Amino acid sequence: MSQDESKAVNIQPIGVVKNDVPDAEVPRRRAEMISKIIIDDQWADALTGIEEYSHLFVLFWMHKKPEMPVEQLLHPRGDKDLPLSGVLATRVRNRPNPIGMAVAELLNRNGNKLTVKRLDAFDGSPILDLKPYDDYDAVKSIQVPEWWAKRCRK
Amino acid sequence: MSQDESKAVNIQPIGVVKNDVPDAEVPRRRAEMISKIIIDDQWADALTGIEEYSHLFVLFWMHKKPEMPVEQLLHPRGDKDLPLSGVLATRVRNRPNPIGMAVAELLNRNGNKLTVKRLDAFDGSPILDLKPYDDYDAVKSIQVPEWWAKRCRK
Repeated sequence: MSQDESKAVNIQPIGVVKNDVPDAEVPRRRAEMISKIIIDDQWADALTGIEEYSHLFVLFWMHKKPEMPVEQLLHPRGDKDLPLSGVLATRVRNRPNPIGMAVAELLNRNGNKLTVKRLDAFDGSPILDLKPYDDYDAVKSIQVPEWWAKRCRK
Repeated sequence: MSQDESKAVNIQPIGVVKNDVPDAEVPRRRAEMISKIIIDDQWADALTGIEEYSHLFVLFWMHKKPEMPVEQLLHPRGDKDLPLSGVLATRVRNRPNPIGMAVAELLNRNGNKLTVKRLDAFDGSPILDLKPYDDYDAVKSIQVPEWWAKRCRK
């Protein structure tokens, strides 16, 4: 076993995202889109009480990431007028480990099914984890690069 | 291959957390603790420009999670006066996939080394991903269970 292989971590998804938004429209519709999160039956009890939170971090696997090498340096949005940036200084999908993360609004829970808003995951994305969102996750004063502030806010 | 094995995702860490805080003190000292994040040389370019952000989501592997089965239902903080809650309705470490996530303040970058504040990761934790934090991650009006508001805010 190489050194790299010895470091790998193995993750077993606990559920799946369902929505009817075509993949190509997800970025544009993220703020308003509604999805279901179906948690595997074996983890249904792990959701007990989650409906008391208004917002969750949803961690998912970006299973449809392009089969191309990760670009370490890229022009955000493919726009050559924006500065060459490291992939970890962006939120692009084709990243070293394509773990997606969104702050989603939890609309309701029905057994092992959650309905959420603002989850920008493609239909069929495996769910890795859910975490309650709390006050201490909300940072009031932040700084971002100028290009980001101009181009990436919605 | 079983159905479960076919769903597994394999993740290769891209770096490691270094700090001198004893594991047992991390929860209590989280708000003030300072850590280094050392990104593997092969991903150094991927950090280009990250120093322009004030805050990052740090995703890490909780490699020291206890070798015991995940409790799907638990009394938060081990306090039997708090309601029995699903593990996904808490932020406890012993969860189905022990992916840690913290909103950390980025103090500086020196090549492939970042210095961050408020990262509640144990020394040696593998880094899975870094994502810039932006306005749309800061939710202004949230709801949490009464027990959480009383006991889990710092």
